Amino acid sequence: MQLQRSLELRTEGRGIYELTDRVSEVVRAAGVREGLCVVSCLHTSASLVVTECADPAVRTDLQAWLERIAPEGDASYTHTAEGPDDMPAHLRAAITSASETLIISAGELALGVWQGLYLMEHRAAPHSRRVLVHVQGDL
Amino acid sequence: MQLQRSLELRTEGRGIYELTDRVSEVVRAAGVREGLCVVSCLHTSASLVVTECADPAVRTDLQAWLERIAPEGDASYTHTAEGPDDMPAHLRAAITSASETLIISAGELALGVWQGLYLMEHRAAPHSRRVLVHVQGDL
Amino acid sequence: MQLQRSLELRTEGRGIYELTDRVSEVVRAAGVREGLCVVSCLHTSASLVVTECADPAVRTDLQAWLERIAPEGDASYTHTAEGPDDMPAHLRAAITSASETLIISAGELALGVWQGLYLMEHRAAPHSRRVLVHVQGDL
Repeated sequence: MQLQRSLELRTEGRGIYELTDRVSEVVRAAGVREGLCVVSCLHTSASLVVTECADPAVRTDLQAWLERIAPEGDASYTHTAEGPDDMPAHLRAAITSASETLIISAGELALGVWQGLYLMEHRAAPHSRRVLVHVQGDL
Repeated sequence: MQLQRSLELRTEGRGIYELTDRVSEVVRAAGVREGLCVVSCLHTSASLVVTECADPAVRTDLQAWLERIAPEGDASYTHTAEGPDDMPAHLRAAITSASETLIISAGELALGVWQGLYLMEHRAAPHSRRVLVHVQGDL
Repeated sequence: MQLQRSLELRTEGRGIYELTDRVSEVVRAAGVREGLCVVSCLHTSASLVVTECADPAVRTDLQAWLERIAPEGDASYTHTAEGPDDMPAHLRAAITSASETLIISAGELALGVWQGLYLMEHRAAPHSRRVLVHVQGDL
Protein backbone atom coordinates (compact mmCIF):
# COMPACT_ATOMS: atom_id res chain seq x y z
CA MET A 1 0.00 0.00 0.00
CA GLN A 2 1.33 3.43 -0.98
CA LEU A 3 0.07 6.99 -0.53
CA GLN A 4 1.66 10.30 -1.52
CA ARG A 5 0.61 13.72 -0.36
CA SER A 6 2.05 17.15 -1.02
CA LEU A 7 2.03 19.59 1.92
CA GLU A 8 2.49 23.32 1.65
CA LEU A 9 4.00 25.31 4.49
CA ARG A 10 4.13 29.09 4.56
CA THR A 11 7.14 30.18 6.59
CA GLU A 12 7.64 33.58 8.19
CA GLY A 13 11.32 33.57 7.26
CA ARG A 14 14.31 32.00 8.96
CA GLY A 15 13.22 29.55 11.63
CA ILE A 16 12.28 25.98 12.49
CA TYR A 17 8.69 24.87 11.88
CA GLU A 18 7.12 21.68 13.22
CA LEU A 19 5.82 19.15 10.70
CA THR A 20 5.23 16.13 12.94
CA ASP A 21 1.46 16.52 13.23
CA ARG A 22 0.85 17.15 9.54
CA VAL A 23 2.97 14.15 8.52
CA SER A 24 1.29 11.98 11.17
CA GLU A 25 -2.07 12.86 9.62
CA VAL A 26 -0.89 11.50 6.26
CA VAL A 27 0.22 8.28 7.94
CA ARG A 28 -3.17 7.89 9.59
CA ALA A 29 -4.98 8.69 6.34
CA ALA A 30 -3.01 5.91 4.63
CA GLY A 31 -3.98 3.47 7.35
CA VAL A 32 -0.54 1.83 7.23
CA ARG A 33 0.22 -0.18 10.39
CA GLU A 34 3.84 -1.08 9.64
CA GLY A 35 5.97 0.54 6.98
CA LEU A 36 7.94 3.62 6.00
CA CYS A 37 7.23 7.32 5.73
CA VAL A 38 9.63 9.35 3.58
CA VAL A 39 9.39 13.13 3.83
CA SER A 40 11.14 15.17 1.16
CA CYS A 41 11.72 18.93 1.13
CA LEU A 42 11.72 20.13 -2.49
CA HIS A 43 13.97 23.15 -1.90
CA THR A 44 17.68 23.91 -1.56
CA SER A 45 17.43 26.74 0.95
CA ALA A 46 15.06 24.92 3.31
CA SER A 47 15.64 21.48 4.79
CA LEU A 48 14.42 18.92 7.31
CA VAL A 49 15.72 17.95 10.72
CA VAL A 50 14.63 15.59 13.47
CA THR A 51 15.40 17.22 16.79
CA GLU A 52 14.13 17.80 20.31
CA CYS A 53 10.47 18.75 20.50
CA ALA A 54 10.06 19.69 24.16
CA ASP A 55 12.11 22.82 24.79
CA PRO A 56 11.91 25.39 21.95
CA ALA A 57 15.28 26.77 23.15
CA VAL A 58 16.89 23.78 21.41
CA ARG A 59 15.62 25.01 18.06
CA THR A 60 16.71 28.58 18.85
CA ASP A 61 20.21 27.37 19.73
CA LEU A 62 20.38 25.10 16.67
CA GLN A 63 19.42 28.02 14.44
CA ALA A 64 21.97 30.32 16.09
CA TRP A 65 24.72 27.70 15.81
CA LEU A 66 24.10 27.15 12.09
CA GLU A 67 24.34 30.92 11.69
CA ARG A 68 27.73 30.87 13.41
CA ILE A 69 29.27 28.00 11.45
CA ALA A 70 27.78 29.06 8.09
CA PRO A 71 27.52 32.85 8.52
CA GLU A 72 25.54 35.23 6.38
CA GLY A 73 27.51 37.49 4.06
CA ASP A 74 30.85 35.67 4.38
CA ALA A 75 33.33 37.41 2.07
CA SER A 76 34.43 34.12 0.54
CA TYR A 77 31.04 33.28 -1.01
CA THR A 78 30.93 33.66 -4.79
CA HIS A 79 27.22 32.76 -5.15
CA THR A 80 25.87 36.13 -4.00
CA ALA A 81 23.38 37.16 -6.69
CA GLU A 82 20.36 36.19 -4.61
CA GLY A 83 21.43 38.05 -1.48
CA PRO A 84 23.71 37.50 1.52
CA ASP A 85 21.33 34.95 3.10
CA ASP A 86 21.19 32.62 0.09
CA MET A 87 24.56 30.85 0.05
CA PRO A 88 24.53 30.15 3.82
CA ALA A 89 21.01 28.77 3.29
CA HIS A 90 22.40 26.20 0.84
CA LEU A 91 25.22 25.30 3.26
CA ARG A 92 22.85 24.85 6.20
CA ALA A 93 20.52 22.77 4.01
CA ALA A 94 23.42 20.59 2.82
CA ILE A 95 24.44 19.51 6.33
CA THR A 96 20.90 18.93 7.58
CA SER A 97 18.58 16.83 5.36
CA ALA A 98 16.73 17.10 2.09
CA SER A 99 14.66 14.10 3.19
CA GLU A 100 13.97 12.12 6.34
CA THR A 101 12.90 8.48 6.46
CA LEU A 102 10.73 7.54 9.42
CA ILE A 103 9.58 4.04 10.38
CA ILE A 104 5.85 3.42 10.92
CA SER A 105 5.04 1.03 13.79
CA ALA A 106 1.60 0.21 15.19
CA GLY A 107 0.04 2.74 12.82
CA GLU A 108 2.13 5.69 14.03
CA LEU A 109 5.42 7.39 13.21
CA ALA A 110 8.03 5.67 15.36
CA LEU A 111 9.62 8.73 16.92
CA GLY A 112 11.31 8.85 20.29
CA VAL A 113 9.48 10.70 23.05
CA TRP A 114 11.66 13.80 22.55
CA GLN A 115 11.81 13.68 18.75
CA GLY A 116 9.93 15.95 16.37
CA LEU A 117 10.21 16.48 12.62
CA TYR A 118 10.89 20.06 11.56
CA LEU A 119 11.27 22.09 8.41
CA MET A 120 14.10 24.60 8.60
CA GLU A 121 13.57 27.79 6.63
CA HIS A 122 17.05 29.11 5.92
CA ARG A 123 16.09 32.23 3.96
CA ALA A 124 15.45 35.52 5.79
CA ALA A 125 12.16 36.27 4.02
CA PRO A 126 8.87 34.34 4.24
CA HIS A 127 8.53 31.57 1.68
CA SER A 128 6.01 29.00 0.56
CA ARG A 129 7.64 25.57 0.92
CA ARG A 130 6.50 22.25 -0.49
CA VAL A 131 7.10 18.98 1.30
CA LEU A 132 6.25 15.62 -0.28
CA VAL A 133 5.19 12.73 1.97
CA HIS A 134 5.36 9.11 0.76
CA VAL A 135 3.79 6.41 2.96
CA GLN A 136 4.06 2.71 2.20
CA GLY A 137 3.55 -0.52 4.09
CA ASP A 138 1.04 -3.06 5.29
CA LEU A 139 -2.47 -2.16 6.42
CA MET B 1 8.02 -8.91 3.18
CA GLN B 2 8.59 -6.68 6.22
CA LEU B 3 10.22 -7.20 9.61
CA GLN B 4 10.77 -4.73 12.44
CA ARG B 5 13.03 -5.21 15.42
CA SER B 6 13.92 -2.93 18.31
CA LEU B 7 17.54 -3.06 19.49
CA GLU B 8 18.80 -1.73 22.80
CA LEU B 9 22.33 -0.46 23.17
CA ARG B 10 23.87 0.48 26.49
CA THR B 11 26.50 3.15 25.93
CA GLU B 12 29.35 4.03 28.28
CA GLY B 13 28.93 7.73 27.54
CA ARG B 14 30.24 9.85 24.68
CA GLY B 15 31.59 7.70 21.90
CA ILE B 16 30.90 5.83 18.69
CA TYR B 17 29.50 2.31 18.91
CA GLU B 18 29.30 -0.18 16.07
CA LEU B 19 25.87 -1.44 15.03
CA THR B 20 26.69 -3.17 11.73
CA ASP B 21 26.65 -6.73 13.05
CA ARG B 22 23.44 -6.37 15.04
CA VAL B 23 21.62 -4.80 12.10
CA SER B 24 23.00 -7.44 9.73
CA GLU B 25 21.52 -10.12 12.00
CA VAL B 26 18.06 -8.58 11.61
CA VAL B 27 18.49 -8.58 7.83
CA ARG B 28 19.45 -12.26 7.87
CA ALA B 29 16.56 -13.11 10.23
CA ALA B 30 14.17 -11.47 7.76
CA GLY B 31 15.61 -13.52 4.91
CA VAL B 32 15.26 -10.58 2.51
CA ARG B 33 17.48 -10.98 -0.58
CA GLU B 34 16.86 -7.59 -2.17
CA GLY B 35 15.30 -4.63 -0.42
CA LEU B 36 15.83 -1.86 2.11
CA CYS B 37 16.91 -1.64 5.73
CA VAL B 38 16.01 1.54 7.58
CA VAL B 39 17.67 2.10 10.95
CA SER B 40 16.22 4.79 13.19
CA CYS B 41 17.71 6.19 16.40
CA LEU B 42 14.87 7.24 18.70
CA HIS B 43 16.84 9.91 20.57
CA THR B 44 17.87 13.53 20.07
CA SER B 45 21.24 13.38 21.82
CA ALA B 46 22.41 10.21 20.07
CA SER B 47 22.52 9.68 16.31
CA LEU B 48 23.69 7.41 13.51
CA VAL B 49 26.59 7.70 11.12
CA VAL B 50 28.08 5.54 8.37
CA THR B 51 31.84 5.92 8.49
CA GLU B 52 35.14 4.07 8.17
CA CYS B 53 35.23 0.77 10.01
CA ALA B 54 38.90 -0.21 9.71
CA ASP B 55 40.93 2.31 11.74
CA PRO B 56 39.31 3.30 15.06
CA ALA B 57 41.32 6.54 14.92
CA VAL B 58 38.78 7.79 12.38
CA ARG B 59 36.02 7.56 14.98
CA THR B 60 38.26 9.23 17.59
CA ASP B 61 39.01 12.10 15.21
CA LEU B 62 35.35 12.43 14.17
CA GLN B 63 34.31 12.64 17.81
CA ALA B 64 37.01 15.21 18.58
CA TRP B 65 36.08 17.31 15.55
CA LEU B 66 32.39 17.41 16.50
CA GLU B 67 33.51 18.56 19.94
CA ARG B 68 35.46 21.40 18.33
CA ILE B 69 32.74 22.64 15.99
CA ALA B 70 29.89 22.20 18.53
CA PRO B 71 31.69 22.68 21.84
CA GLU B 72 30.43 21.81 25.26
CA GLY B 73 29.42 24.68 27.51
CA ASP B 74 29.40 27.37 24.81
CA ALA B 75 28.25 30.62 26.44
CA SER B 76 25.70 31.27 23.70
CA TYR B 77 23.56 28.21 24.46
CA THR B 78 20.23 28.98 26.10
CA HIS B 79 19.13 25.34 26.48
CA THR B 80 21.30 24.55 29.49
CA ALA B 81 18.94 22.99 32.04
CA GLU B 82 20.12 19.45 31.33
CA GLY B 83 23.83 20.21 31.63
CA PRO B 84 26.63 21.60 29.46
CA ASP B 85 26.83 18.43 27.32
CA ASP B 86 23.15 18.44 26.30
CA MET B 87 22.83 21.26 23.77
CA PRO B 88 26.01 20.27 21.88
CA ALA B 89 24.58 16.73 21.84
CA HIS B 90 21.51 18.01 19.96
CA LEU B 91 23.72 19.97 17.52
CA ARG B 92 25.95 16.99 16.79
CA ALA B 93 22.87 14.78 16.36
CA ALA B 94 21.29 17.30 13.96
CA ILE B 95 24.20 17.29 11.51
CA THR B 96 24.70 13.53 11.59
CA SER B 97 21.58 11.34 11.12
CA ALA B 98 18.46 10.34 13.00
CA SER B 99 18.09 7.47 10.54
CA GLU B 100 20.13 5.70 7.89
CA THR B 101 18.71 3.83 4.89
CA LEU B 102 20.80 0.93 3.65
CA ILE B 103 20.20 -1.16 0.54
CA ILE B 104 20.01 -4.95 0.86
CA SER B 105 21.62 -6.87 -2.03
CA ALA B 106 22.19 -10.62 -2.26
CA GLY B 107 20.79 -11.02 1.26
CA GLU B 108 23.28 -8.65 2.90
CA LEU B 109 23.58 -4.97 3.76
CA ALA B 110 25.20 -3.34 0.73
CA LEU B 111 28.01 -1.48 2.50
CA GLY B 112 31.34 -0.57 0.97
CA VAL B 113 34.34 -2.51 2.21
CA TRP B 114 35.36 0.36 4.55
CA GLN B 115 31.85 1.29 5.68
CA GLY B 116 30.32 0.53 9.05
CA LEU B 117 27.11 1.73 10.73
CA TYR B 118 27.61 3.39 14.09
CA LEU B 119 25.56 4.89 16.89
CA MET B 120 27.02 8.10 18.24
CA GLU B 121 26.39 8.72 21.93
CA HIS B 122 26.66 12.47 22.35
CA ARG B 123 25.95 12.67 26.10
CA ALA B 124 28.81 12.40 28.59
CA ALA B 125 27.10 9.82 30.81
CA PRO B 126 26.16 6.22 29.95
CA HIS B 127 22.71 5.83 28.44
CA SER B 128 20.41 3.11 27.23
CA ARG B 129 19.61 3.82 23.58
CA ARG B 130 16.90 2.29 21.43
CA VAL B 131 17.33 1.76 17.71
CA LEU B 132 14.51 0.56 15.48
CA VAL B 133 15.32 -1.59 12.44
CA HIS B 134 12.85 -1.97 9.56
CA VAL B 135 13.63 -4.52 6.85
CA GLN B 136 11.55 -4.93 3.70
CA GLY B 137 11.95 -6.52 0.31
CA ASP B 138 11.82 -9.73 -1.66
CA LEU B 139 12.77 -13.12 -0.25
CA MET C 1 8.44 -3.96 -8.19
CA GLN C 2 12.13 -3.57 -7.37
CA LEU C 3 15.22 -2.86 -9.45
CA GLN C 4 18.84 -2.39 -8.36
CA ARG C 5 21.65 -1.00 -10.47
CA SER C 6 25.27 -0.27 -9.65
CA LEU C 7 26.73 2.89 -11.20
CA GLU C 8 30.42 3.66 -11.49
CA LEU C 9 31.68 7.22 -11.50
CA ARG C 10 35.27 8.17 -12.23
CA THR C 11 36.09 11.39 -10.40
CA GLU C 12 38.91 13.77 -11.21
CA GLY C 13 39.61 14.35 -7.54
CA ARG C 14 37.97 16.69 -5.05
CA GLY C 15 34.76 18.10 -6.43
CA ILE C 16 31.01 17.72 -6.79
CA TYR C 17 29.70 15.56 -9.62
CA GLU C 18 26.09 15.44 -10.83
CA LEU C 19 24.26 12.12 -10.62
CA THR C 20 20.68 13.24 -11.28
CA ASP C 21 20.51 12.12 -14.92
CA ARG C 22 22.09 8.72 -14.34
CA VAL C 23 19.79 7.96 -11.41
CA SER C 24 16.76 9.21 -13.38
CA GLU C 25 17.64 6.71 -16.11
CA VAL C 26 17.46 3.86 -13.60
CA VAL C 27 14.04 5.08 -12.45
CA ARG C 28 12.79 5.17 -16.03
CA ALA C 29 14.29 1.73 -16.77
CA ALA C 30 12.36 0.35 -13.79
CA GLY C 31 9.14 1.88 -15.06
CA VAL C 32 8.02 2.72 -11.51
CA ARG C 33 5.30 5.40 -11.46
CA GLU C 34 5.09 5.92 -7.70
CA GLY C 35 7.65 4.71 -5.20
CA LEU C 36 11.09 5.28 -3.73
CA CYS C 37 14.60 5.58 -5.08
CA VAL C 38 17.44 5.03 -2.60
CA VAL C 39 20.93 6.00 -3.72
CA SER C 40 23.84 4.74 -1.66
CA CYS C 41 27.49 5.77 -1.92
CA LEU C 42 29.66 2.79 -0.94
CA HIS C 43 32.64 4.86 0.26
CA THR C 44 33.70 6.75 3.38
CA SER C 45 35.63 9.54 1.68
CA ALA C 46 32.97 10.32 -0.90
CA SER C 47 29.33 11.12 -0.14
CA LEU C 48 26.03 12.34 -1.54
CA VAL C 49 24.29 15.68 -1.30
CA VAL C 50 21.12 17.20 -2.72
CA THR C 51 21.81 20.84 -3.49
CA GLU C 52 21.22 23.64 -5.98
CA CYS C 53 21.63 22.60 -9.61
CA ALA C 54 21.42 25.94 -11.43
CA ASP C 55 24.47 27.99 -10.46
CA PRO C 56 27.71 25.94 -10.23
CA ALA C 57 29.07 28.60 -7.86
CA VAL C 58 26.91 27.01 -5.14
CA ARG C 59 28.91 23.79 -5.43
CA THR C 60 32.19 25.71 -5.46
CA ASP C 61 31.20 27.58 -2.30
CA LEU C 62 29.93 24.40 -0.61
CA GLN C 63 33.23 22.67 -1.36
CA ALA C 64 35.26 25.63 -0.09
CA TRP C 65 33.17 25.87 3.07
CA LEU C 66 33.64 22.18 3.91
CA GLU C 67 37.37 22.76 3.45
CA ARG C 68 37.21 25.60 5.98
CA ILE C 69 35.24 23.78 8.66
CA ALA C 70 37.06 20.44 8.22
CA PRO C 71 40.49 21.55 7.01
CA GLU C 72 43.13 19.40 5.42
CA GLY C 73 46.18 18.58 7.53
CA ASP C 74 44.73 19.75 10.86
CA ALA C 75 47.35 19.03 13.53
CA SER C 76 44.78 17.34 15.77
CA TYR C 77 44.04 14.46 13.39
CA THR C 78 45.46 11.11 14.48
CA HIS C 79 44.28 9.18 11.39
CA THR C 80 46.98 10.42 9.05
CA ALA C 81 48.44 7.27 7.45
CA GLU C 82 46.56 7.76 4.20
CA GLY C 83 47.57 11.40 3.73
CA PRO C 84 46.44 14.84 4.91
CA ASP C 85 43.29 14.77 2.74
CA ASP C 86 41.92 11.51 4.14
CA MET C 87 40.64 12.38 7.62
CA PRO C 88 38.91 15.60 6.47
CA ALA C 89 37.33 13.45 3.73
CA HIS C 90 35.76 11.23 6.39
CA LEU C 91 34.53 14.28 8.33
CA ARG C 92 32.98 15.91 5.27
CA ALA C 93 31.36 12.59 4.32
CA ALA C 94 29.96 12.15 7.86
CA ILE C 95 28.05 15.45 7.84
CA THR C 96 26.73 15.09 4.30
CA SER C 97 25.10 11.74 3.39
CA ALA C 98 26.07 8.14 2.74
CA SER C 99 22.66 7.68 1.11
CA GLU C 100 19.79 9.79 -0.17
CA THR C 101 16.16 8.68 -0.40
CA LEU C 102 14.16 10.29 -3.18
CA ILE C 103 10.44 9.93 -3.82
CA ILE C 104 9.25 8.84 -7.26
CA SER C 105 6.05 10.57 -8.47
CA ALA C 106 4.47 10.32 -11.92
CA GLY C 107 7.36 8.15 -13.07
CA GLU C 108 10.07 10.70 -12.22
CA LEU C 109 12.31 11.61 -9.30
CA ALA C 110 10.36 14.16 -7.27
CA LEU C 111 13.02 16.85 -7.01
CA GLY C 112 12.36 20.55 -6.63
CA VAL C 113 13.12 22.71 -9.64
CA TRP C 114 16.48 23.80 -8.15
CA GLN C 115 17.46 20.43 -6.69
CA GLY C 116 20.08 18.08 -8.10
CA LEU C 117 21.70 14.94 -6.68
CA TYR C 118 25.48 15.04 -6.47
CA LEU C 119 28.37 12.82 -5.49
CA MET C 120 31.03 14.64 -3.49
CA GLU C 121 34.55 13.38 -4.01
CA HIS C 122 36.42 14.37 -0.87
CA ARG C 123 39.85 12.93 -1.77
CA ALA C 124 42.36 15.06 -3.67
CA ALA C 125 43.21 12.37 -6.25
CA PRO C 126 40.92 10.88 -8.92
CA HIS C 127 38.96 7.84 -7.76
CA SER C 128 36.55 5.30 -9.14
CA ARG C 129 33.38 5.49 -7.03
CA ARG C 130 30.50 3.04 -6.87
CA VAL C 131 26.94 4.13 -6.22
CA LEU C 132 24.10 1.67 -5.74
CA VAL C 133 20.58 2.62 -6.85
CA HIS C 134 17.52 0.82 -5.51
CA VAL C 135 14.13 1.58 -7.08
CA GLN C 136 10.85 0.18 -5.80
CA GLY C 137 7.18 0.95 -6.20
CA ASP C 138 4.12 0.52 -8.36
CA LEU C 139 4.23 0.37 -12.16
